[in-house]
Amino acid sequence: MSPTPVTFTSPILPTAYAWEATNEQVAERYGVPIDSIVRFDLNTSPTPPALVDRLLAAGQFDAPLSEYPPSDYRRLTEAAAARYGVGTDELLVGAGADEILDLVAKAFLAEGSRAVLPVPTYAMYRVLTEQRGAEVVNVPRRPPSEGWALDVDAVRAAARGCSVVWLCSPNNPTGLAEPDGTIEALLDGLASDAKADDTEPPIVVLDEAYAEFVGTTLLPLRDMYSRLIVVRTASKAYALAGLRVGFAIAHAEVIARMNPYRPPGSVSTVSVTIVTEALLDPAILATNLARVETERGRLADGLTTAGWSVGPSVTNFLLVDFGSAERAADTAEGLLARGIVPRTFGMGHVLASYLRLTVRDRHENDRLIEAARQLSSEIQA
Amino acid sequence: MSPTPVTFTSPILPTAYAWEATNEQVAERYGVPIDSIVRFDLNTSPTPPALVDRLLAAGQFDAPLSEYPPSDYRRLTEAAAARYGVGTDELLVGAGADEILDLVAKAFLAEGSRAVLPVPTYAMYRVLTEQRGAEVVNVPRRPPSEGWALDVDAVRAAARGCSVVWLCSPNNPTGLAEPDGTIEALLDGLASDAKADDTEPPIVVLDEAYAEFVGTTLLPLRDMYSRLIVVRTASKAYALAGLRVGFAIAHAEVIARMNPYRPPGSVSTVSVTIVTEALLDPAILATNLARVETERGRLADGLTTAGWSVGPSVTNFLLVDFGSAERAADTAEGLLARGIVPRTFGMGHVLASYLRLTVRDRHENDRLIEAARQLSSEIQA
Repeated sequence: MSPTPVTFTSPILPTAYAWEATNEQVAERYGVPIDSIVRFDLNTSPTPPALVDRLLAAGQFDAPLSEYPPSDYRRLTEAAAARYGVGTDELLVGAGADEILDLVAKAFLAEGSRAVLPVPTYAMYRVLTEQRGAEVVNVPRRPPSEGWALDVDAVRAAARGCSVVWLCSPNNPTGLAEPDGTIEALLDGLASDAKADDTEPPIVVLDEAYAEFVGTTLLPLRDMYSRLIVVRTASKAYALAGLRVGFAIAHAEVIARMNPYRPPGSVSTVSVTIVTEALLDPAILATNLARVETERGRLADGLTTAGWSVGPSVTNFLLVDFGSAERAADTAEGLLARGIVPRTFGMGHVLASYLRLTVRDRHENDRLIEAARQLSSEIQA
Repeated sequence: MSPTPVTFTSPILPTAYAWEATNEQVAERYGVPIDSIVRFDLNTSPTPPALVDRLLAAGQFDAPLSEYPPSDYRRLTEAAAARYGVGTDELLVGAGADEILDLVAKAFLAEGSRAVLPVPTYAMYRVLTEQRGAEVVNVPRRPPSEGWALDVDAVRAAARGCSVVWLCSPNNPTGLAEPDGTIEALLDGLASDAKADDTEPPIVVLDEAYAEFVGTTLLPLRDMYSRLIVVRTASKAYALAGLRVGFAIAHAEVIARMNPYRPPGSVSTVSVTIVTEALLDPAILATNLARVETERGRLADGLTTAGWSVGPSVTNFLLVDFGSAERAADTAEGLLARGIVPRTFGMGHVLASYLRLTVRDRHENDRLIEAARQLSSEIQA
């Protein structure tokens, strides 16, 4: 098979993030009761940790809510640095991982610069690159049979002269981590090329939003590649997406380059306090990870038995191949009519024949499995 | 008096917001108990509205906290639109007014463009302009004897060829609203100049963070100037700075230009829910405004009696003139040693001889008045 060519996306018009329909919009369009709607499209966890209610009821936060949040988010920064095993000067707090990505773009992508994007991947990397007036160099990933892995040689070649390389492992929406040694080999190659070209190697962003589900991190690669920025979040494994807290972890010099772009205080004091406590309590993570692992297997089995082609996943979501864009679209309609919201990719997208589905709680997953049984017989390949 | 010349700030290095010291830093540096520290430097209100505790304890939010906030912030958008008397397509929600200002910069300031800044004013306008690689054209305000008013002719002349004009009324840190008709005259002039030059008039940002304290808004000026963006916030008169919620209000076409730059969900669901309820309850605003008005008069009288030169204010802060940068700095040190944090401007700033002080609650204001009495006799002009 000949590889799909590298393509360039021109920054003529700003790209916006394509928001999924809200619960109200789904309820209106499909005539389903709003309380019956379940979001299988956002890779969130089904219930927040129990400490949330306790902390909210106590009403004691890092500062009174009439005051601004502490400008250095000190307790949160210390808790996160301890959790990730880094110094407090190696970590930056943002309003969700999305703000961290925006700070990367602001600090490292000038107008007219270029960024490499191994596709398919999370949509915001392209959006933020183009909003800076920078150019996206799309590099296709290896085929599904090779686990959608990075094409190291192609990424390395495309990265020459680029300012940023956007990586995501485990990758969203494909659900798998890069094979062992892949990112290490890429970083090694990027460093060699930069040396040969007598230039600074590109900033490499490694979005580890789903890393907790695998239990490993590539954070130690900072030791071999000083321009690595690892992104973490409270939204996925910590089940706190509604609080909007994310982190950048990098060498202190890299954090210092991003810090001037940080707004004076974009994270709510309520979020600061709750996420601090969540990071300090290892049981919270363990509880949710165990739930996701059990349910991921059960959901994948149920959907497979129902006749769907479910790809392997190390994350809290599954990528299902429907063989054609039409069947994927018909299935999405059938799910939405039942109040089940899948992640769709739209015609023309390389994943147009796929749907992405979040692993949720037992009852919700059973609803999805039952819907799959019904739709599988209704909608033929 | 000959006017101070218009100056240009070159965007060679990104400017960062200069954060005030945190409570911990003040406690460490001045050896005061952390619980005794009062922030007179942030123009916040002394206590959040009573509904906050009730809503937090109830724990019912627009979505479970494990999910993302509703991507359209529907209820909040509807409540804010109703509160400000505009359509929901004429309003944008941000993580504090600071994120709104960032979205303006992203949408309307390209690299190499220029923005007009009547100075002194809120520091973020310059920071965000320079971070876009755009140039700041500083236009000095009229002298204190003329209420620090906009120099309409100078701003108008400087605005030719500029993309954005940053206005703030009532202005921070000078504490007064523009004289009646001033902004109207400016907008009229800008529109005429654009017509004469056969170009589009600049975007005019009117930051009304403190408008509730005056009880009037210039929002109706959108009818005469379609490129006006009014900025509002929950941080000041609503006493909810810790929740980080701000708004842009503009014609639907202008909002549509900003919308692609809005992150998928930067505002915490807790903030969305609480600010929605605060906007829907007119008593919250009335209670805080009455408190501020009473205390502003009392604090100004007390400080004046103590020998300080307090400027007029229509906001929740006072600007005090110490006659020299040295005396202002000495006074700031004296206040900090007592756990009272003033807003300082630093040597070289046009307000180097001033301190800005927030109107707080009765007890806190009494502490400041007592400190002023002591320092007034210790530190001579």
